[in-house]
Amino acid sequence: MKEKTLRSKCVFKGSLLDVRKDEVIFPNGSKSTREWINHPGAVCCIPVLDNGDICLIKQYRYAIREYVIELPAGKLEIGETPIHCAKRELEEEIGFEAKKIRFLTMFYPAVGFVNEEMHLFLAGDLKKTKTNPDEDEFIELIPKTLDQAIEMIYSGDITDAKTIIGLVWAQKLLTNSKP
Amino acid sequence: MKEKTLRSKCVFKGSLLDVRKDEVIFPNGSKSTREWINHPGAVCCIPVLDNGDICLIKQYRYAIREYVIELPAGKLEIGETPIHCAKRELEEEIGFEAKKIRFLTMFYPAVGFVNEEMHLFLAGDLKKTKTNPDEDEFIELIPKTLDQAIEMIYSGDITDAKTIIGLVWAQKLLTNSKP
Repeated sequence: MKEKTLRSKCVFKGSLLDVRKDEVIFPNGSKSTREWINHPGAVCCIPVLDNGDICLIKQYRYAIREYVIELPAGKLEIGETPIHCAKRELEEEIGFEAKKIRFLTMFYPAVGFVNEEMHLFLAGDLKKTKTNPDEDEFIELIPKTLDQAIEMIYSGDITDAKTIIGLVWAQKLLTNSKP
Repeated sequence: MKEKTLRSKCVFKGSLLDVRKDEVIFPNGSKSTREWINHPGAVCCIPVLDNGDICLIKQYRYAIREYVIELPAGKLEIGETPIHCAKRELEEEIGFEAKKIRFLTMFYPAVGFVNEEMHLFLAGDLKKTKTNPDEDEFIELIPKTLDQAIEMIYSGDITDAKTIIGLVWAQKLLTNSKP
């Protein structure tokens, strides 16, 4: 029942986006085209500070022309493993080295048009190093208690999908681990 | 502190994807480019059947080359309101007319590269009509209890971001409304 690729073509290759247009044949024999984005994959981290707060960040997102409150995240570099990427992004975006880091799950942000896999990690035992943001990132740290962060989902203050999913996982894990 | 657009260019316009490459100036005065996808917005529906089950669907997603279990969803057509789109997608994808429909929230699936807004609706009082899928959609209905569906998030059987977020909202609403 799968769609079979007849021909695949790169229609735009930028520094961020790799856009494809494929000719496919459907299970019923009809032909069509599929447009999609080829993505290297990404990570999203839940950084738990020593006092239990979750270290959220706030940054401007050009695609939506708004400031967004998010968990630290970033794209995999070529040949990079998700766990290495998670540690790198934590250091670059919030200036912490994670002594403990644990893979939680993988999900797809937008199955309709991109093959991006988002790998979610829980990070703890954080040691302050220095913030080392990319030149096009201007990031503010927004530490919140887990309860505050969850409340911000339902009040509409947190609208970023990976952040919502990360916080819900954090709530399940950190609540269940209480004695 | 916002990034200012100096020039915007459409680098690919397909039947699905509208890809842009903009020249921008950062708050610190440096110039760079931003690649992003211009998206019309979308809806995602939580269809609650008369017996309380959530009507999930299973379909092949070409971008990730896998079958995916999802909530019914779809893109806004030109000039279409989110609520009209939600009703249309419910009828097209699962063959039900929703007599009751309620807007819950809006979130961004992937703020890093697309301006897509995902509008989430709770749909009830469903009346069977007929399934009327798009010619490139082959959809199987997968009704599950809410508890089963939530469990499928944490077991890794549900990996689609909008579906995870929709089910978590359903859990909060439908659990809180119990006496």
